[in-house]
Amino acid sequence: MNAVAAAAEETGGRASRRGGRSARRELRTDRSSSSKMLPGLKRNLPLVEPMDQEQVEKIDAASMAILEDVGVVFRDDIALEDWRKAGAKVDGDRVYLDRGMVRELISSIPETFTLHARNPENNVALGGPHSIFVPMTGAPYLRDLEDVRRYPTLDDLAMFHKLAHVSPALHSSAHHIVEPMDHVVAHRHLRITYSSMKHSDKIFMGMTTSPKNADDVLDMCAILFGDEFLETHPVVVGNCNGNSPLVWDEVMLGAMRAFNKRNQPVLCSPFVLGGANTPASTAPAVAQLNAEALSALAYTQVVRKGCPAIYGHYLSTVSMQSGAPMAGTPEISLMNFMIGQMARFYRVPWRTSNTLGGAKTFDAQAGYESAWTLNAVLMAGANYIWHSAGWNEAGMHCSVAKFIVDAEQCAMGHRMASGINWDDFDEALAAVRDIGPGGHYLGHPHTQANFQRAFFMPKMFDNNSIEQWIAEGSVEITARALKEAHAMLDAYEEPVLDQAKNDELLDYIARREREIPAVDALNDEY
Amino acid sequence: MNAVAAAAEETGGRASRRGGRSARRELRTDRSSSSKMLPGLKRNLPLVEPMDQEQVEKIDAASMAILEDVGVVFRDDIALEDWRKAGAKVDGDRVYLDRGMVRELISSIPETFTLHARNPENNVALGGPHSIFVPMTGAPYLRDLEDVRRYPTLDDLAMFHKLAHVSPALHSSAHHIVEPMDHVVAHRHLRITYSSMKHSDKIFMGMTTSPKNADDVLDMCAILFGDEFLETHPVVVGNCNGNSPLVWDEVMLGAMRAFNKRNQPVLCSPFVLGGANTPASTAPAVAQLNAEALSALAYTQVVRKGCPAIYGHYLSTVSMQSGAPMAGTPEISLMNFMIGQMARFYRVPWRTSNTLGGAKTFDAQAGYESAWTLNAVLMAGANYIWHSAGWNEAGMHCSVAKFIVDAEQCAMGHRMASGINWDDFDEALAAVRDIGPGGHYLGHPHTQANFQRAFFMPKMFDNNSIEQWIAEGSVEITARALKEAHAMLDAYEEPVLDQAKNDELLDYIARREREIPAVDALNDEY
Repeated sequence: MNAVAAAAEETGGRASRRGGRSARRELRTDRSSSSKMLPGLKRNLPLVEPMDQEQVEKIDAASMAILEDVGVVFRDDIALEDWRKAGAKVDGDRVYLDRGMVRELISSIPETFTLHARNPENNVALGGPHSIFVPMTGAPYLRDLEDVRRYPTLDDLAMFHKLAHVSPALHSSAHHIVEPMDHVVAHRHLRITYSSMKHSDKIFMGMTTSPKNADDVLDMCAILFGDEFLETHPVVVGNCNGNSPLVWDEVMLGAMRAFNKRNQPVLCSPFVLGGANTPASTAPAVAQLNAEALSALAYTQVVRKGCPAIYGHYLSTVSMQSGAPMAGTPEISLMNFMIGQMARFYRVPWRTSNTLGGAKTFDAQAGYESAWTLNAVLMAGANYIWHSAGWNEAGMHCSVAKFIVDAEQCAMGHRMASGINWDDFDEALAAVRDIGPGGHYLGHPHTQANFQRAFFMPKMFDNNSIEQWIAEGSVEITARALKEAHAMLDAYEEPVLDQAKNDELLDYIARREREIPAVDALNDEY
Repeated sequence: MNAVAAAAEETGGRASRRGGRSARRELRTDRSSSSKMLPGLKRNLPLVEPMDQEQVEKIDAASMAILEDVGVVFRDDIALEDWRKAGAKVDGDRVYLDRGMVRELISSIPETFTLHARNPENNVALGGPHSIFVPMTGAPYLRDLEDVRRYPTLDDLAMFHKLAHVSPALHSSAHHIVEPMDHVVAHRHLRITYSSMKHSDKIFMGMTTSPKNADDVLDMCAILFGDEFLETHPVVVGNCNGNSPLVWDEVMLGAMRAFNKRNQPVLCSPFVLGGANTPASTAPAVAQLNAEALSALAYTQVVRKGCPAIYGHYLSTVSMQSGAPMAGTPEISLMNFMIGQMARFYRVPWRTSNTLGGAKTFDAQAGYESAWTLNAVLMAGANYIWHSAGWNEAGMHCSVAKFIVDAEQCAMGHRMASGINWDDFDEALAAVRDIGPGGHYLGHPHTQANFQRAFFMPKMFDNNSIEQWIAEGSVEITARALKEAHAMLDAYEEPVLDQAKNDELLDYIARREREIPAVDALNDEY
């Protein structure tokens, strides 16, 4: 055992002493195996389902009654016309949806599907037992490689895309993890999309900041994957937020249509601040959220029958003392459990938000909040586990340090939700007989053969004695994570884009930047 | 809503401005309701049970085969003689236990029982769906009210007993939360027990550092509760660690007998460092741990049939890189799920360890580790949830700051595991109709009536904007928690002991301190 550890240290020491290009290459080689993407999570752990069948049906009935009697506002003329044609009752901008029609419409959403990456080894399944971890999105600030809070640039975004690429448990490079503030808003979606495509060959997300922006993203996807492939394979995921209670706006609906028309999935995400824009009670809040999600899911099938779609939500509870959104609270866990049951009841893949933190720094609060939510969403069986790395300060900043630690947390969650390994059960019991009372297992052949995979060893957790920790400089987790980030970036190798496609993408961006006036506009995606 | 918040602020502001005794009294009155103990947790959330019936029986069969074929070492002549008389095969210090005998013996352990406090309002049920949160034990250092790491004194211990008393979600004052280093080891158990009894009227734990020390504790319990009551009611819980693999020593067995003879329960706790003293694999490690726990549980019933007993374990996985124990890892979660299934299979209440941290300070690592384990043990359905507040640095110190935050975490866990509230479902749905699309709920009567209970508002989590947080001094969670600790201690009111009993206890301690030589001895309880 000691030999193994000593050998590992020796290798690391050599690389860092030697320095220069050859050392970096060596480091890259060392890391290439460890930074290989984990397969999508196929869960093998029971789900936490706090509702019995009757209670699930009670939520369903309440949601359907809301859709029938209260209705949903679609602030978009095309959607209203679509609904009229589909046979819904439309009054002004309010659409009343009959439960039979809703059930019929959502029945054509695929229960599971595969998201395709430009590197087919990084394709991932979604839905049923298949889940993926996706980094956070949309931070207007970052805490950088020196933990300084500032506005992000396009280079910062590229850095996060690189970190997502080399983090084994992250299955996607997402899109605007941070907002590239050095780039004009009207052109930003082009640069963000290109950065996702260029710096990683994992799956990614597409901007839905306007219907036209969404079209641009999909045009770029057509360049990367080919028109025909795009038409028949999900390759990019958009997010469309609802305005709870019970409103969908023009921007989101237009972007949704752009994706759906080209057969690409969106997350249909009511934006819930429990207690502020829902009733102050968990079960009724879920009933409202469920009605909202169903109305958008149904609309995706009006736009294009059979198009993949994902039951979404952004969910926070609101402190009734301050009005601030809260993370890592017990009701968020309970509501995730319930939402998971509803999505499975409708046989639709579902999205949740993962390691959310409301802390201002990467302190113990951030740790508690993040691990609460990680455990809840794993137990809830969420499929598209978004905001899985970096989120802090209620989404106002993405922290490099937290990104690194969260990504490792996802690997830990992946391990737990993969369930129990029984392969070596008999062999290990033979070891119990070999060792007998009072012995130890460190030198036993079974231990030697299995220690690497037996127990997860979190690299970002320091478990040394305090004496050793002090001798090594009393380094807390933020500094350790930032050091790791530097090492990961140093070891990063770009999965180079096909030259012709790269040229075509750059031409497209150049043309669109000429066409689109460089005025600032609101970015209202979360 | 704002009026409610504003009113609350106003009250707080007045109390702190006025100062002095009347302000303290007012503060106490304000706090008396909030610091009232939460009832024991009666869980209403599904359990996470990753094993099917066949797999449970597979672990059972493996454990029974270990007991029959490998045997367990009881390093204690009395226990060996007891086992001989009970009909077990004894060879040297090794006892071979037939599965039929084990099943017969453990069948007399009560599936649930009540632990009695000197204040009957603080009695708690244990076993089945009934769970309690108990603070940590045994830290040789503390991080104090100024976050300074140093040796603890008896006054420090008293402080922790006071904090346990006023923390609503802690159901016990435990015993030596920290080691009172200013007191001679040989007399320490007397002072520790008295401190538990004096500073809180919740249940507590009893020292098992030697058979004689255990007798002293039980004598003191007889003074506090009366001989007859003690004989017929569980009032104190001891812990007895096994030496994995498969060894129980004289000190622990003697202490166990002292408790059991007077009908008091002990936690039968194999001390597992997964991979070091068990096989490097989760399921086989659980099979060994289960065999160890069963052997001690069976022995409690040899000592006294029908005596309550608790299936215990201390569980850590070992980093095969450094040999250090790890906390908050996925395998610890998985093993907790499995152990819960085994304990329920045998219909015995079970103990686990809660918010363990390996971090050296109260940083994000400690937060992640603690919330991982809290969520795991709640999902596992643990009954006696020990080490629920303060544990950090692998148990080497108890942190005041972490104690405060962990105690609130337990309240959050209590809320989650209590499940979903359906009481106001119809009423809240009526609010959805009242508000309609695009409205907000803050002013609605349902919100006004329910906001206090609807969503947990963690006092220790700061969810304000960064601007407000900076304006208030950029206070991180450690400083916030220490401020809260000061406030709680200021508001603490001693639940005064009956004068006659207090005198008798002090007389007993004085006599025993005269009788017991004041030499130092090892304290090997964890």
